[in-house]
Amino acid sequence: MGIDDPSWWGWGDSAHTPVLPDAVLKLLTDGLGVREGPGHPGSMSELELAPPRLGRQAASALAEVVGQEWALDDHETRIRHVRGKSTIDLLRLRLGDVASAPDMVLLPSSHEDVLELLRICSERRVAVVPFGGGTSVVGGLEPDSSGFAGVVALDLRRMNALLELDEVSRLAVLEPGLRGPQAEALLAARDYTIGHFPQSFEYASLGGFAATRSSGQASAGYGRFDEVVQSLRVATPVGTLETGRAPRSAAGPDLRQLILGSEGALGVITSLTVRVRPVPQERVYDGWGLPSFSAGLEGVRKLAQDGPLPAVLRLSDEAETALNLARPAELGQGASGCLAILGFEGTSESVELERAAVAAVLASVGGEPEAGAGASWERERYRAPYLRDALLDAGALVETLETVAFWSALPGLYEAVSASLRDALGAQGTPAVVLCHVSHVYPAGASLYFRVACAQSYDPGAQWRRAKDAAGDASLAVGGSITHHHGVGIDHLPWYEREIGELGVGALRAVKAQLDPAGIMNPGVLLSRR
Amino acid sequence: MGIDDPSWWGWGDSAHTPVLPDAVLKLLTDGLGVREGPGHPGSMSELELAPPRLGRQAASALAEVVGQEWALDDHETRIRHVRGKSTIDLLRLRLGDVASAPDMVLLPSSHEDVLELLRICSERRVAVVPFGGGTSVVGGLEPDSSGFAGVVALDLRRMNALLELDEVSRLAVLEPGLRGPQAEALLAARDYTIGHFPQSFEYASLGGFAATRSSGQASAGYGRFDEVVQSLRVATPVGTLETGRAPRSAAGPDLRQLILGSEGALGVITSLTVRVRPVPQERVYDGWGLPSFSAGLEGVRKLAQDGPLPAVLRLSDEAETALNLARPAELGQGASGCLAILGFEGTSESVELERAAVAAVLASVGGEPEAGAGASWERERYRAPYLRDALLDAGALVETLETVAFWSALPGLYEAVSASLRDALGAQGTPAVVLCHVSHVYPAGASLYFRVACAQSYDPGAQWRRAKDAAGDASLAVGGSITHHHGVGIDHLPWYEREIGELGVGALRAVKAQLDPAGIMNPGVLLSRR
Repeated sequence: MGIDDPSWWGWGDSAHTPVLPDAVLKLLTDGLGVREGPGHPGSMSELELAPPRLGRQAASALAEVVGQEWALDDHETRIRHVRGKSTIDLLRLRLGDVASAPDMVLLPSSHEDVLELLRICSERRVAVVPFGGGTSVVGGLEPDSSGFAGVVALDLRRMNALLELDEVSRLAVLEPGLRGPQAEALLAARDYTIGHFPQSFEYASLGGFAATRSSGQASAGYGRFDEVVQSLRVATPVGTLETGRAPRSAAGPDLRQLILGSEGALGVITSLTVRVRPVPQERVYDGWGLPSFSAGLEGVRKLAQDGPLPAVLRLSDEAETALNLARPAELGQGASGCLAILGFEGTSESVELERAAVAAVLASVGGEPEAGAGASWERERYRAPYLRDALLDAGALVETLETVAFWSALPGLYEAVSASLRDALGAQGTPAVVLCHVSHVYPAGASLYFRVACAQSYDPGAQWRRAKDAAGDASLAVGGSITHHHGVGIDHLPWYEREIGELGVGALRAVKAQLDPAGIMNPGVLLSRR
Repeated sequence: MGIDDPSWWGWGDSAHTPVLPDAVLKLLTDGLGVREGPGHPGSMSELELAPPRLGRQAASALAEVVGQEWALDDHETRIRHVRGKSTIDLLRLRLGDVASAPDMVLLPSSHEDVLELLRICSERRVAVVPFGGGTSVVGGLEPDSSGFAGVVALDLRRMNALLELDEVSRLAVLEPGLRGPQAEALLAARDYTIGHFPQSFEYASLGGFAATRSSGQASAGYGRFDEVVQSLRVATPVGTLETGRAPRSAAGPDLRQLILGSEGALGVITSLTVRVRPVPQERVYDGWGLPSFSAGLEGVRKLAQDGPLPAVLRLSDEAETALNLARPAELGQGASGCLAILGFEGTSESVELERAAVAAVLASVGGEPEAGAGASWERERYRAPYLRDALLDAGALVETLETVAFWSALPGLYEAVSASLRDALGAQGTPAVVLCHVSHVYPAGASLYFRVACAQSYDPGAQWRRAKDAAGDASLAVGGSITHHHGVGIDHLPWYEREIGELGVGALRAVKAQLDPAGIMNPGVLLSRR
């Protein structure tokens, strides 16, 4: 089942999971009181799965659409489509909890397939979870299927074509099941790139990027994925919605922005038109040391507001810089102050000009170049999820969360969220290390990405939930959004509903009732069930 | 009634309406067969108005909210709030047709005022038209109030404060009734600018800019108004909607984008948080001659895709360049080839660097600098509507329309729309001059702005409607949007509904039913009544 068969209870190819050096293990036990790890789940075949709930008629009607060989309800396929990749998801899998596995996995090959599947599922009240790369970290793949006749996952991996490349408009029409590297390879063959490189890049899909408003590491240069998308084709239970015939228009509200971020709750994105650019001649990554997080914030804000804006612009706080978490072998050997990572793209001439201009800005806030840090970040840019697996093995609870606010609210947001995490975990007898970096910048504000580590308690799910709740409350209280790029899923739902308010929720419910009258699309995700 | 008392049947301050030189008049009569003009409407007091339909109870309940002195149903005030400023609007006013005047004009002073007015109007089935600058050119101020107990205009001019300036985030919170120059003056006192300068700048309001997705002449540098807006507060008939607590977020669909472009059909924008920037040290405008429209398109596309992108970037086609419509005194004395206008902003050093880089790109497609053209464009940038009044006086029918598409569709769109206008007017015995310019550029596409002139027939309303219908059909057929920055109103409705499709219309109707269950908000505008 699948292109690459990633680990079903951890991240990606487990051969990349690092071995933690003794110094790190000592730091975990002595510093955080980490004890025994949770162990591995053993063989897949030993896990107990509920028998498929779908009746024979429904199952064969669905199978007929995609063809028998693409309608799977075998043990392994079902388990490989249970939930996503949050820390709690992985810990539950380590314990063999696969209760919410879909009853059947369907692999459509076309927009028409999807339309027909949604029609049948609506008629038979079968819940549907659109499944791209399976990398949600907010419960976006765990719909509430109670009251339904079953739940099917629509795995979009067969919809993986580059349908069209318009070199004049610099637009590519792509199918949603393409993983990041697949899409980039197809485009690289024509010397183009989308430039969207989130940490989940190696496994996540284009449809998922759009449905969750993903933001890549080079978002300063290429924009967020919701800015990259120009048009969408969507299959809904009531038919086809096509939106976006121009970069921008004054033809009413922008309906693209209703589908972007809709997390499978309104329909299935079946093709995307995205902006592409010529592959740059050069990509260079620099590290800069800043005397403090507040000096660093001033520097990156200057770059975001007055330019020049490098393609990648990130800033670690003092704790993250000191711990140097990205390189386990050098853990704790980071620099003092704060580390900024900058990525430049273009011709060698334009890169040199931009580097010089950026250097002047960073020097004006006390920055100094830090040799090797840029290259090291580039090497490790997709490795953090592997490190998480190793730390979970060792008995640590490690997880991330992210938020975003306007610049003036940012220092308060940083303090409030950090404190809420430390307090909530400390109060449970598991003192925590909280690290933070600015991952994405805008002229008016920036995102904060937090990483947390502490000892796993006897019930890490409840332990983390308490910390996450406190952080969500703290975020909203000081003006932050509940999520900058992870999405809402089920984990963020209560805060999301507070954030957009009763009228916002009402407007979205009205749209859902219109496009998905039977309520089969990812029920309980993005919008709570009533 | 009002800040500046602009002409109620023409544009702005009629002292600025130019006197057409004899050469122009000769060109109109000999070239286009223009005969007699329609005359002026005479005194306002002679016009017949239907008696106000609002019952005494409703009228006094509404007046109580704003105070008696801000609830007006006198003859002049009602006439000053009839319709907008399209050519047909003005021609109807010249004939004394004020049939659709609102029954009452209410001037709320706060969000709470508006909420309460909408509550009362919902209860009593009174239609509401939010009224900012009154400059709609698509019928956005002419709701269909049949079946309602009356129609009131909410004139927002009293809501004209700068509520907050956040210099760290570079954000200003402003009220919707501010006209362009008022807002810029308040911000200029603090050395900031929004940078939004559409042709209607002198009269249009901030709320209107947002509700119609306005695009300014410097949109390449500052973005469209829908990109400038970061947060919105909206009063709806069912309560308050607040959206946008960060520049961007992954917290579901972007609800700001549902309000932007909603044209008063969902609620009233009562405050806006917009991006501001320090007033640039220098603003310089250059003209460049290009050998042809297609060479010019290639040049502006290069700038839009690879940079550098000046703040203003426009390109006239051969006909517009030759006719030189912006300067009546020099009409017909334009250059050959095509004229591009470029606006640069920044420090004198950055402006010089950018001018040089842009010059290299334009020279690569055969361009040559055209002395004086930039300054002349700057002087006349808000004058076109005055020229229209003079041409209408002389008996010409002059009107504009605009569309937008991806770059690869643009040459086809240009040909199709030009031909449709020429054909539709020619077939009516009124051969037309059709001029076009690229007014706004994006990496993936650009807008086309058309200006049309011919002789007025005996029924110019029907005459123009036939031409506009043909142009709308032509636009959609080759992949353009029905509007780039004028909005939908009632004039674009049938094409808009075709453009967004049945599901798009259904989604918007569902949102409207949720936020405006009595359907009082600008009925028939944006969404047709059923």
